[in-house]
Amino acid sequence: MYMTQSLHRSMQQRPDKIALRFNGQSTTYAEFGDRVARLAAALRKLGVAEGERVAMFSLNSARYIEYYMAVPWAGAVLNPVNIRWSAPEVIYSVNDCSTAVLIVDDPFVDIARKVAAACPSLRRIIYAGDGETPEGMLNYEALVADSEPMEDAYRHGDDLAGIFYTGGTTGVPKGVMLSHTNLVSSSCNQLMAGTLDEGTTMLHVMPMFHLACFASINGVFLSAGTHAVLRAFEPGAMMAAIAETSITHVLLAPTMIQMGLDWMGSNPGRAAHLDLTSLRSIRYGASPMTPTLMARTRATFPHATFTQGYGMTELAPVATLLGAEYHTDEAVATGKIHSVGRPVHTTEVKIVDEMGNEVPRGCVGEIAVRGPNVMLGYWNKPEATAEAIRNGWMHTGDGGYMDEDGFVFLMDRIKDMIVSGGENVYSAEVEKALVNHPAVAQCAVIGVPHEKWGEAVHAVIVLKPGATTTLESVRSHCREQIAGYKCPVSVDFREALPLSSIGKVLKNELRKPYWAQPA
Amino acid sequence: MYMTQSLHRSMQQRPDKIALRFNGQSTTYAEFGDRVARLAAALRKLGVAEGERVAMFSLNSARYIEYYMAVPWAGAVLNPVNIRWSAPEVIYSVNDCSTAVLIVDDPFVDIARKVAAACPSLRRIIYAGDGETPEGMLNYEALVADSEPMEDAYRHGDDLAGIFYTGGTTGVPKGVMLSHTNLVSSSCNQLMAGTLDEGTTMLHVMPMFHLACFASINGVFLSAGTHAVLRAFEPGAMMAAIAETSITHVLLAPTMIQMGLDWMGSNPGRAAHLDLTSLRSIRYGASPMTPTLMARTRATFPHATFTQGYGMTELAPVATLLGAEYHTDEAVATGKIHSVGRPVHTTEVKIVDEMGNEVPRGCVGEIAVRGPNVMLGYWNKPEATAEAIRNGWMHTGDGGYMDEDGFVFLMDRIKDMIVSGGENVYSAEVEKALVNHPAVAQCAVIGVPHEKWGEAVHAVIVLKPGATTTLESVRSHCREQIAGYKCPVSVDFREALPLSSIGKVLKNELRKPYWAQPA
Repeated sequence: MYMTQSLHRSMQQRPDKIALRFNGQSTTYAEFGDRVARLAAALRKLGVAEGERVAMFSLNSARYIEYYMAVPWAGAVLNPVNIRWSAPEVIYSVNDCSTAVLIVDDPFVDIARKVAAACPSLRRIIYAGDGETPEGMLNYEALVADSEPMEDAYRHGDDLAGIFYTGGTTGVPKGVMLSHTNLVSSSCNQLMAGTLDEGTTMLHVMPMFHLACFASINGVFLSAGTHAVLRAFEPGAMMAAIAETSITHVLLAPTMIQMGLDWMGSNPGRAAHLDLTSLRSIRYGASPMTPTLMARTRATFPHATFTQGYGMTELAPVATLLGAEYHTDEAVATGKIHSVGRPVHTTEVKIVDEMGNEVPRGCVGEIAVRGPNVMLGYWNKPEATAEAIRNGWMHTGDGGYMDEDGFVFLMDRIKDMIVSGGENVYSAEVEKALVNHPAVAQCAVIGVPHEKWGEAVHAVIVLKPGATTTLESVRSHCREQIAGYKCPVSVDFREALPLSSIGKVLKNELRKPYWAQPA
Repeated sequence: MYMTQSLHRSMQQRPDKIALRFNGQSTTYAEFGDRVARLAAALRKLGVAEGERVAMFSLNSARYIEYYMAVPWAGAVLNPVNIRWSAPEVIYSVNDCSTAVLIVDDPFVDIARKVAAACPSLRRIIYAGDGETPEGMLNYEALVADSEPMEDAYRHGDDLAGIFYTGGTTGVPKGVMLSHTNLVSSSCNQLMAGTLDEGTTMLHVMPMFHLACFASINGVFLSAGTHAVLRAFEPGAMMAAIAETSITHVLLAPTMIQMGLDWMGSNPGRAAHLDLTSLRSIRYGASPMTPTLMARTRATFPHATFTQGYGMTELAPVATLLGAEYHTDEAVATGKIHSVGRPVHTTEVKIVDEMGNEVPRGCVGEIAVRGPNVMLGYWNKPEATAEAIRNGWMHTGDGGYMDEDGFVFLMDRIKDMIVSGGENVYSAEVEKALVNHPAVAQCAVIGVPHEKWGEAVHAVIVLKPGATTTLESVRSHCREQIAGYKCPVSVDFREALPLSSIGKVLKNELRKPYWAQPA
């Protein structure tokens, strides 16, 4: 198995089909494949050897998707850069895995210069913008035009395909090494779940450096569908793109969906002209969707179904899926909707105790995962790898339980669990109770230091527009649903929660003011 | 990836779902998995080591499916025996791969004794029938009852999963070594093609030793569907089983479908009471289906769609699929219906010349295949392996061409090609012309010795009931469709064509009388 095989397949079977739409331009599979094979040749001419790293530091674009195919085509290794990172973080990662070439577009040219100055391994910078090529950099289009297409290098199987940095918000970033088999098996699981097909046109609106987006890109390639690209997330642009390019599939964090719907409400004139009937699949992750948000989404996208994915970069990235059939009123009634679904086809999940033994169904433990999607390991971090992968099982650090039907219910990161007065409190459970409060729009629960109990349960709340409430009201509301020791003992009201690039609440940011040494 | 993971998945997620129906009895996934783990333990207790071969010589049964899961669960290697084989052939294969244990049912007890006497590696024979256990054999049910379930041995990836003998009708049988990855990737391709789902109940009516049937079994396991088993093919029993167990999927050779429909015509009384509306998918292979047969089939199974597969044991076994969407009137008009479809998702196909270079689209060459489904090699036959797999590509020995859309059109086995007066004649092309003749029901075209031309085109024809025709009529009919040198110069009329266990015409049988040394 090798990553670019999906592209070869469409070049062979559907050369005239539209592979990609971006900025009003369309590219067929034959044209796209030709550009990929030329860019690959250009990288080789620049001295990139098999297995060497090539980084991309860019907003979303057609060229980003070319990069994702050209680097493995050349036999090199992908290293996409987190666009939220500051120069020192980029420099750390580029040095960590000795990246040889960096491709950048306009917003990142200045940081790229700093990176070049601080990274001895970096031999070349390629400018992938549409303006004038900055001094000292090579022009992406010129490289493509000046190179003859090369044969695919055909690295495959357990060969390293990419290094994807994770954990930038919680300590030192770790480079997750994913093989060709990791990435292809992940695509296969998407197709086996029936969520993608030849008729798919997927809008890529999540930041492309993120593995969730890259995995979707690979899935669309394997299904011989069509890519549509939005440069970055902006609610109005997203809604317009869905209507204008007849998007069928989209991957979003629930917060992004909410922002899209809010934009519709604030722009009724423009919204009224959008035909949103083409959308038939919304994949979401990072956090659950409330029934209210689902109902609002359905009202706006009449043909959309929902699929929730759970996973992490180390799992390439999906471990479980909650399919469309579990987003119904019945699933709400049975509670399955609160799960992250069941293990995907070739992936195994079990819940284990601290000794690695499986716990009974319904008991909370650590989620462990085995399968062809489990990473090769962390780059240059054999101890971290040995700690994460034991007996072939990736220990996710996530807490959860499995019900009798194999549905996984996520609690917290094990290390995010609050230990208050000797009792384990899972913030997810508290948040689930809190979010039903009539005044609460969003919330996050963390542990804060407490002299007597060690930690105390603390809630950070974003109120609905115009709403007010009190700690007492919040506590009594929670008390009806969960045990007293789990209810918040203090509360903060805020305008917004700090979010990561993919819409996850950054709990470390919330914790910082309370702890001298952030956990 | 490992073969039994599909079973573990259903045991975890759907323990109470019916896994298997046979002889009026139903087994849940929990029960089935328990029996598999016990049988695996019994094999280990008998001294079967990891990687050792366990053979099965039986008609279809629930126990056959248990065997297929228990042997890999025990860490051993499958070696299913062709039920058409004579004692010397079975002895050859058991000695060839040093099989340790043989499981037999009633029809094969006598041959099994001869095999035991002639095969020093064979330590035990297990009787899997329902009668009294023959002397010197162990009882299958007693072994299952007396063993405690063992943990899965978890052989996986490139580990050998089974040895499947092929070519028994054309010279010395070769043991095709398939790995766990080979078999799982084949199942994944079935699911990605959308031909199987959780609602599948598949009737296994092809002989189970055959990889086509085994691959279907694996596909049903991965989709968490239900198996239904018919002991052997018999047209009336098959039609009754489809109605009585609400079969949704079936895999058949076109000749078997025809026999089923003929049975309906000859038994109108019984046929009238059968509800055949549950059947929604007919997978066929080995030979194409005529439009007439398709129309008759649709009239009988109103909800059935068709999928054609092409492959071979060495490809675990599927390389291409012609999906339901290419069994329409439009596909007849475009000619796509005459193809064997396009490469499956993770499998690559190219048409090559004698030097291994890809030929232009539309040109005939040898079909070559690469992907995770390509066998590890032939057991103990490194030369044959090196000849078949070159640069990672399995050279199938089948002739064919690919059109501009990636559809593969099968001609002949390269070695079955007729060379007449220096011209290459593909019997498939002649047969396609012949079968339209109003008097012809079935036909096969072979090369026979000719003093002047080397070989001459010879047709063997089965006439429609009551029909007659002449060589001249046949020739002039063909001449309207194909070049003169391709038209038959001689013809034989027969009652029936000799068929293999999966419905392939045995051309070697037809050739024998004409050649001193059969090709």
